[in-house]
Amino acid sequence: MAAGVNRYKTDLREMTFTLVEQFGFNEIAGKAPFEAWGADEAKAVLESTYRFVREVLGPINATADREGCRLENGQVKTPKGFKEAWKALYEAGYKTLSLSPERGGQGAPKMLQVLVEEMLSGSNTAFNMYPGLASGAAELLDHCATPEQKKTYVERMLNGTWAGTMCLTEAQAGSDVGAVKTSARKAADGTYRIQGTKVFISAGEHDLTENIVHLVLARVDGAPAGTRGLSLFIVPKLRVGADGKPGAPNDVACSSIEHKMGINGSATCVLNFGDNDDCRGELVGTVENAGISQMFKMMNGARIAVGLQGVALASAAYQCALEYAKDRKQGASFKQWKDASAPRVPLLEHPDIRRMLLDAKAHTEGMRMLVVKLASHGDKARQLAGSDDEKAAYHRGQVELLTPLVKGYTSEEAPRLTALMLQVFGGAGYVKDHPVEQYCRDAKIFSIYEGTTHIQAMDLVGRKLGQGGGAHLQQFMSDIGGFVDAHRGDATFGKAVETLAGAQEALLQSAMAFMGWSQGEKVHLIPLAANRFLTMMSQLAVGWLLLDAGVRAEGARAKLPEGHPDRAFYEGKRYSALWYARNVLPQIEAQSKMTALEDESPMEISEAAFVAG
Amino acid sequence: MAAGVNRYKTDLREMTFTLVEQFGFNEIAGKAPFEAWGADEAKAVLESTYRFVREVLGPINATADREGCRLENGQVKTPKGFKEAWKALYEAGYKTLSLSPERGGQGAPKMLQVLVEEMLSGSNTAFNMYPGLASGAAELLDHCATPEQKKTYVERMLNGTWAGTMCLTEAQAGSDVGAVKTSARKAADGTYRIQGTKVFISAGEHDLTENIVHLVLARVDGAPAGTRGLSLFIVPKLRVGADGKPGAPNDVACSSIEHKMGINGSATCVLNFGDNDDCRGELVGTVENAGISQMFKMMNGARIAVGLQGVALASAAYQCALEYAKDRKQGASFKQWKDASAPRVPLLEHPDIRRMLLDAKAHTEGMRMLVVKLASHGDKARQLAGSDDEKAAYHRGQVELLTPLVKGYTSEEAPRLTALMLQVFGGAGYVKDHPVEQYCRDAKIFSIYEGTTHIQAMDLVGRKLGQGGGAHLQQFMSDIGGFVDAHRGDATFGKAVETLAGAQEALLQSAMAFMGWSQGEKVHLIPLAANRFLTMMSQLAVGWLLLDAGVRAEGARAKLPEGHPDRAFYEGKRYSALWYARNVLPQIEAQSKMTALEDESPMEISEAAFVAG
Repeated sequence: MAAGVNRYKTDLREMTFTLVEQFGFNEIAGKAPFEAWGADEAKAVLESTYRFVREVLGPINATADREGCRLENGQVKTPKGFKEAWKALYEAGYKTLSLSPERGGQGAPKMLQVLVEEMLSGSNTAFNMYPGLASGAAELLDHCATPEQKKTYVERMLNGTWAGTMCLTEAQAGSDVGAVKTSARKAADGTYRIQGTKVFISAGEHDLTENIVHLVLARVDGAPAGTRGLSLFIVPKLRVGADGKPGAPNDVACSSIEHKMGINGSATCVLNFGDNDDCRGELVGTVENAGISQMFKMMNGARIAVGLQGVALASAAYQCALEYAKDRKQGASFKQWKDASAPRVPLLEHPDIRRMLLDAKAHTEGMRMLVVKLASHGDKARQLAGSDDEKAAYHRGQVELLTPLVKGYTSEEAPRLTALMLQVFGGAGYVKDHPVEQYCRDAKIFSIYEGTTHIQAMDLVGRKLGQGGGAHLQQFMSDIGGFVDAHRGDATFGKAVETLAGAQEALLQSAMAFMGWSQGEKVHLIPLAANRFLTMMSQLAVGWLLLDAGVRAEGARAKLPEGHPDRAFYEGKRYSALWYARNVLPQIEAQSKMTALEDESPMEISEAAFVAG
Repeated sequence: MAAGVNRYKTDLREMTFTLVEQFGFNEIAGKAPFEAWGADEAKAVLESTYRFVREVLGPINATADREGCRLENGQVKTPKGFKEAWKALYEAGYKTLSLSPERGGQGAPKMLQVLVEEMLSGSNTAFNMYPGLASGAAELLDHCATPEQKKTYVERMLNGTWAGTMCLTEAQAGSDVGAVKTSARKAADGTYRIQGTKVFISAGEHDLTENIVHLVLARVDGAPAGTRGLSLFIVPKLRVGADGKPGAPNDVACSSIEHKMGINGSATCVLNFGDNDDCRGELVGTVENAGISQMFKMMNGARIAVGLQGVALASAAYQCALEYAKDRKQGASFKQWKDASAPRVPLLEHPDIRRMLLDAKAHTEGMRMLVVKLASHGDKARQLAGSDDEKAAYHRGQVELLTPLVKGYTSEEAPRLTALMLQVFGGAGYVKDHPVEQYCRDAKIFSIYEGTTHIQAMDLVGRKLGQGGGAHLQQFMSDIGGFVDAHRGDATFGKAVETLAGAQEALLQSAMAFMGWSQGEKVHLIPLAANRFLTMMSQLAVGWLLLDAGVRAEGARAKLPEGHPDRAFYEGKRYSALWYARNVLPQIEAQSKMTALEDESPMEISEAAFVAG
């Protein structure tokens, strides 16, 4: 592998289709609070981002994977090129695109920001975690902090002067956040003394910025057990003086970093707070025990960001596999397989290669649509708040409902799809000469951090389905129903739309089953079937969005003259939709039937019967 | 991670159940050619192997993964401990267990050998590739070579003095073996001059033995194109003198080794033959252009060995995840999730953890059964040849039919299952402190080497289904039918047996569809649906075997007094079978319906519509 060469590719035509043609960027842009934006501006940003990642982030992705991070005397050295990339990224302004101008941003809709983020993550997943966490922490403070705190921290975190982290996990408290033991003792000056050890802290220590602002979940002495007793603290790596300048080191130490399967450029740290009983933290805002709800301000964004990482690597893997399949000749056409002297053809002519590529194409596009849809609901909610509160509430509800799908589904699909694209390469995919094996390794963490898939599934079935008296789900279903009614008779997609309708009915059956279980003696069936439901509902959503895209694309294609380059692009949308409708949507009915079996075997089997002695 | 500590675990009770109670080791052993064997001897071998791998191979697995192989001046240095392990392995005799005594072996049934191999591969996948290839190459020569060649090579390769390789792949000829360009020119002395470059050669160069015997596929000048024109050559790394001792170096050079995602302890080499036009090879046997059928003698064994690697790592991952789930406390019981002060419980009490573990338990056991079944058919075929040729032919047919299932299914499931077990660990699974992330990386190659999954699938639908006029498939189906008839009314499994019958019917429908396509205008549907069919048929086989095991276990359990330790073990078999019947077998019907849709979208979509510019 040549070090320092960009290997990241994406498809901007696909992105603008999703953004503009499918999710109506122009209906959102041009109006407050997005006055300055239109499709042309969005395209320019996408093009510029793509140039940036090919020049700056892509070339240091594989090298950073090999080099990893080093811990020397308590300080983390990030891989070669990361410092320069950080500087270039903030100079270019890609992280502040959707911030309002008064906060130094450019006021763009989030639906554009997510596509920019896809490229940042896809070209260098590990690198983009540092600015991603900085932004997330800054946004949290912007929502929850006191005016004074905002003044001290937020601007510097948004412009890249300082970085940020979220410190939840402890050795005994991973998915079980309520078990956090890190303590906070109020001092006479109103600050707190923090004491405890946090693990798996991404970007917990590094050399990219002059300071790092840790947001630390801790329990004030005497606070209740569980999540209700957690408070959130600002704990800077270097204490901040009255002049706003970083000064003496706080009592925070990075005692080790993890050696991982992937995302090796991202420092995953063990952080010790208060080993010398002198770790000073400020309460975020003014009220104790509000930490968990404050943290969730950041967590929802982080979950969407992980969903984007999934889309990003699935897409990157698809693009590199497609390129390889076009270039690489291997074997004769299957039509001439008996003729030893038949000419060798590109991999792309082989049916099984085409099947795998179309699988990845359909899934990648559909998952991207899901993320852009979620972001567009957020934009519309913001836009309509105050003028049409009912509609705004609908959009907010869809954000709530779709967040676990975006995080849960894409993070499970990304490892599958990257591995499938590795298979397209054959043995070449297993070696580091090609980027795809790194994509596989990097992608495997997505289903774990920021809440495992099961946590997403329980969020969906335990909270989101019933939220607003079930209104979000009903509206989601009703949106699909409207699509089905409108396109049932479509010449190209009619049969696929019927499949969608059948899948929707099957999902409803399962949703009813969950409701029944929650009220009776079968509560244990809920966690057993939750992941399956998350998958089914995500597939329904993705199938719907792919069909919606297909219908729009067919309409657009019909208006184009023969030979127009977009005709092939629109044709691709047709087959993404048809392939998914024929190969994925039918699984929903089968999964629904399996759900109805109410299999309790995982609970019935005794611990001893799992064996291992 | 402490270097040099064994982290491999298996379950010998499970192995002896499969070997003795399910597949009737005692009906095969004790009779020619396995006179010396019985269940006690088999158990002793399994126990001794397990001791060996825990002491010798397990402790150098993670260290070898980190260290990898080094190429220095054309010589490969294997990781620390590999040389000593090689010596200890051959002293202990584990590689020659199923060889006949007259060839220095112990005359054991293959069905025992496969379980020994599972432990060798599971404890150190990369290491076991070196002796595995040596054995495979020796067996090939034992079948195909001249008496003189056998005398020179085979014994030394079987006793570990020399190693061996199989050299098929070239840069332009991977799955497309017929495109091999390496040439062979007959010299005056009857030997051949070999010229060409082979890539991805596992164990192609190393420091474990004084010599390496390469088996090289090449094309004699003037031979036909394609696989029909390939011959197989013995090309020793060091030329062998009349005294049988290795002497001057042959003209074979290792020019580079690959940097891979996993199996880092296994040297994957580029080998240049005849750079100085002085690479001497001997034709295997006496006939040119017989290379591909000779190579397949080794290839079938190699495919089963890869299937075993899949079982081995799935099982190893299950065992370590189960241990972790028993030890690690996280979160309150789901029954008390609202109570923040409820005690923390082991992961194993959480429903979703149990679901994932039972998934892995059922799949691992069922895949192991599939391999042992295949091996037992081979043993019986050997035992009955000459005395009952009709039965022997039946058994040989099942070996043929099951080989692509064993290779294809386990190699796809192993990456899924190791990743699922990583999920049980949560974030801890992603770091190198635990063995599971290495299992994931190592397992990803299985679906590629020794014939990709699609090659297995095409072997199944294109050759094996129709072999013997369809007899193998009919007999396989009739065996399942017999089981269904016998156990349809079973109190515990009756409903699951009905599901099995439905799945069998669905598979038959798909098999009929393939037959129809092969005779008409829809030949392209065969490669499009082949992988799906391979999965379906494998699932049917595994579901059947798990139910068969379940029935036997229930019978055995009923005879045991309360409190007998085997009662829990047998209970585990019940739930493996029920879980699979309720969560996997129903998918077969859904997949069959999808097959019937005859989706041609991957062929209809134009190359341009895949996009990527």
